[in-house]
Order: sequence, then structure tokens, then C-alpha cells
Amino acid sequence: MFRLARRCIFNADLPLRNARVAVVGLGLMGGSLAMALTQWSLCQEVVGVARREETLREARGCEVAHRVTTDLVDGITGADVIVLATPVRTIIRQLHHLTAMPLGSCLLMDLGSTKTEIVAAMEELPAHVQPVGAHPMCGKETSGLAAAEPTLYEGAPWVLTPLPRTSPAALALARELAVAVGARPLVMHPDRHDRLVAAISHLPYSLAVALMLAVAEIGYEDELVWELAASGFRDSSRLAASDVTMMLDILITNPVAVGELLRRASVHLERLADLLATGDEDELHTLLVAAHDRRTPMFRHAERG
Amino acid sequence: MFRLARRCIFNADLPLRNARVAVVGLGLMGGSLAMALTQWSLCQEVVGVARREETLREARGCEVAHRVTTDLVDGITGADVIVLATPVRTIIRQLHHLTAMPLGSCLLMDLGSTKTEIVAAMEELPAHVQPVGAHPMCGKETSGLAAAEPTLYEGAPWVLTPLPRTSPAALALARELAVAVGARPLVMHPDRHDRLVAAISHLPYSLAVALMLAVAEIGYEDELVWELAASGFRDSSRLAASDVTMMLDILITNPVAVGELLRRASVHLERLADLLATGDEDELHTLLVAAHDRRTPMFRHAERG
Repeated sequence: MFRLARRCIFNADLPLRNARVAVVGLGLMGGSLAMALTQWSLCQEVVGVARREETLREARGCEVAHRVTTDLVDGITGADVIVLATPVRTIIRQLHHLTAMPLGSCLLMDLGSTKTEIVAAMEELPAHVQPVGAHPMCGKETSGLAAAEPTLYEGAPWVLTPLPRTSPAALALARELAVAVGARPLVMHPDRHDRLVAAISHLPYSLAVALMLAVAEIGYEDELVWELAASGFRDSSRLAASDVTMMLDILITNPVAVGELLRRASVHLERLADLLATGDEDELHTLLVAAHDRRTPMFRHAERG
Repeated sequence: MFRLARRCIFNADLPLRNARVAVVGLGLMGGSLAMALTQWSLCQEVVGVARREETLREARGCEVAHRVTTDLVDGITGADVIVLATPVRTIIRQLHHLTAMPLGSCLLMDLGSTKTEIVAAMEELPAHVQPVGAHPMCGKETSGLAAAEPTLYEGAPWVLTPLPRTSPAALALARELAVAVGARPLVMHPDRHDRLVAAISHLPYSLAVALMLAVAEIGYEDELVWELAASGFRDSSRLAASDVTMMLDILITNPVAVGELLRRASVHLERLADLLATGDEDELHTLLVAAHDRRTPMFRHAERG
């Protein structure tokens, strides 16, 4: 009866303000979401779940949630909305774990950076759990609760990847949550998401890694290279400082799309090298102009002149 | 007699404060240098030389120099210090031009981003002209006088590449100028400079170009890719918006070192793709950690937490 009653919530369009939300994982993404929901009074109750006691102490000090716990079962019991905000492969493990738990009816979202494997794991959830994959497209290269801020999601695209089994009411609630924290929901297929983020997120990270590895080889011969690195190098290399656990999970769960983009970029680098070797200035100019003209109009509002 | 008298200045350690300085090219670099010299009263007189009348009008409006002109000969006549602050291949053309002109004794510097070809052209200058190659390691992706600011050079490494013929007094004056605008002079061989900047400047630019070209291919199939580009993509792609004329000159005058770095980076990308294809997580982890650990301690002071 209880399950049935809770299940009807989604047919009756449960508004976010009446929902109890459990956020599992209080890093940059989960911490920021929990903060926004709590501090802006967007829902009835926020419970934060973290693995480490240290994170809980930190969370208690900065109004991250109404209640925090290290006990996953305790944290999600009675939740109308569960948000998994851990690294991608931890999310997949948690989904397998949750599949075997006596969950009530609820909306189950994640904030993982790849979607295909997560959504496949969501297929196994019990029928009364409504799964929606999600990926807010924001972030910093610094991770952890200390970097979290309630405004993190403002203006960010927030991808939603519902499953065929996802009810319209569950998707509506997921949308409402994204909008409530200031993000712009965008619904798409998980495969499409993974292909697009391979291009605009996983490739840039990989290029920063390749840059650091190549410069380190030069630095091994001549340490002065590190002295000379100026602002352009700072921006280009920044993503290489991203959390390795998080990024390894991302690459490993999106191997085909990332692999294809890496090979494409490699071809472009080889092409530039060939044009330099042969002194084909016209073709080189054409490629540089193409890149310039494509990049220049982007981020006009966000960049200083 | 005049020439001899002027020539003795370098033996007598002409201090910058008594020098008349001509800055040829009033873009970001030249404009910023002229502004610092003028506004901070670092020398006796600053003459700015620009190609376009429009630039002169702009320069008159913002205290860039004591006097501005579009006439190169007029601008450099009587100068104790001439600074060529144009794109690399324009500098080389100007050096050939100056070689045939009746110059007085002077220090002749440039601010070009590659040094080997410029220094080779400097070899041809008359004996009473003291050449010193220079490259201040700063900049923005925005170019032009509008982006110039007198504080541009503060804290920046300022590479000096003297020639065997350069007198100690001329090098001392070049150093004094760099220090006066807040930069940190670093003397090195032009070949070493070009190899190091290929790694920390020309490779990052090329990676941003390759990124834009690869993402544009994806965008051709699915325009939504541009919607999703978040902050990480902004930083990684920023250098692709650099001035094409300037960057083409740089790449074309540093083809061997840049070509080698492009191939190195390409090898690293292919390696990452191979590891993803075979699922070699341990080796992938090792590479990501190597890049992370090398990048993390850099720029500690300049980056926000």
C-alpha cells in the first residue's frame, strides 16, 4: 500500500517543494546541488550521504543539507528523489546495490559524466523506481565539498537521459529540479550525450594530459621549460589537474567515442606537422582561420575583451 | 663623429632614464611597453610608430607615447633604443630594411615570439647597431592596442637572446628595460628559446586548433555539441582564437621544434586511444596520474581554489 501510494506521487505531479531529496556523494556536484536545495528551500528535506566522517563534519559546518549520514540505507529511506553524485563507476556499483534493496517509489537520478553504461544499469532497477540519467554540464577542475557552491548550476546545460520506462511525471520532476537550481534541461539519448561530451569534455581533458606528457619530456631535458610557462599554458593544461579517479571512470565508460575523438585530433596534429614540414603556408593558414573563426564567436558573454 | 659619440654611450652605460625609445608596432605588446615607459616616466622620450592612422588616433587618446608617427624613418631617427614589436616575419622584413638605412648607434631589440630567424637577420645589421633578441613571455588571446596595459609585463619572464657581437653594455640596457617594466630577464640561446616555447606556447596553440577542428567535425553532424561546451572547453579552446597572422608567423619560423612537439603529442593521443581500446586501465591510470601530478603544483599562486 505504501509503495503504491508513493508511486502515485509521480502520476499526481509531486512538486519539488514537497519532496524529500537524498543526495548521495557530497563532492563538488552533489555538495553544490544539496546546498542549493537546502539554502534556497527548494524542497521539503535534504539528506546528504557521504562515505567519510570527515566530509560529514565539513558538511555540518556549511549548511549543505538538513541531515547528513554515512549510512546509505538510512540516507535514502523515505526519499522521494535520490540523486547519485559519485564518480561514474561508483554510481554503477550503487545502482546494482540499490536494485537489491527494498526501495520505496522514487525518482532516481545520477549526475555522472557519461550516460550509456549508467542508463544500462538503471534498466535493472525495480519497476516502482523511476530512473532518469542526468549530467549537469558544469564543473571546475577543483573537486570536493570545499569547492561546492549553490550557484554552480546557474545557466549550465543539464542533460537528462530518460529511459523508455521513465514516466512523464518522473521526467517532469527531474526537469523541475534542474530548473530550480538555475540550469537549462536538455533531453537526449545517452549515446548522443556520450558522443558529444567526448568532443567537448573528454577530448579537451585528454589534450591537456598529452600536453603535460609532451612538455614533461622536454622538461626532462631542460627544466627551464617550467619557468617559461605563461598564461596560455595555464589555461591549456588546467584540465590535466582534474581528479584522476573521476576522469579515469569517465574515459573507461566512454571508450569508443573518446577513442574516435583522440584519433581525429591526432590526425589533425599530424596534418599540421606535415604542413609545417612541407612549408604549405596556404593550407596551414586555411586551417588556422577555420579554427579561429569557429572559436571567436563562442563565449562572447563570458570572456573579457 | 656623431656615430662614434653615440656608440660610446653603450660603453658608458647609458641609463634607461636618459634614453629616447622608439617602439615600432603599437599592438598588445608594443602598446603595453610604450605605455609603461611613458606613463611611468622610465625614459627620456617614447616615440610610437604604427602603420595605420587609426592606431595613431587611438594611441593619442590613451597616453601610449610622447609622440606617434606612421613614418618609420622619422620615428626611429635619433632613437637610443629601437624596439620592433610587430609580428615575427614583419620584424624580419623590418630588420632587412633597417640594415640598409643610415641608423645611428643604438640598441635594437624586438619582441618577437620566435628568435632563431630574427637573430639571424640581426647579424646583418651595421656594426654600430647593437642587437638583442627579446621575447617577453606574457600576452592575452586578444590583440591590438585596445588590449594593451602598462602592467602587462609585471612578473613575466622576459627572454633575452644576445648575439655574439652584442656588447655587455647593450645587453645591460636591454635587461634594465625589462626590469623597469616589471619583467624577469632570462638570457638564453635563440635555439633553446625556440625549442622551449614550441613546448609551452606553440604546442598549446596547435592543440587548441586541433580541438576546434575535431569538434567542428562532430558539430557538422550534430550542432548541439556547441550548446554543451562548458567552462573546461572554454579554457582548452581559447588559444585557437589567437591572432592568425601572428600565430602563422610563429609556426612558420619555428617549424622543426613545433613539428617535433606536434608529433610527440600525437603519439601520446594515439597511446591513450590504444589503452582505451585494449582496456588497459592500469597504464591509463599511470599516465593520467603523471600528468596530474606534474600540473597540480603549477600556478598555485595564480589559480583560485
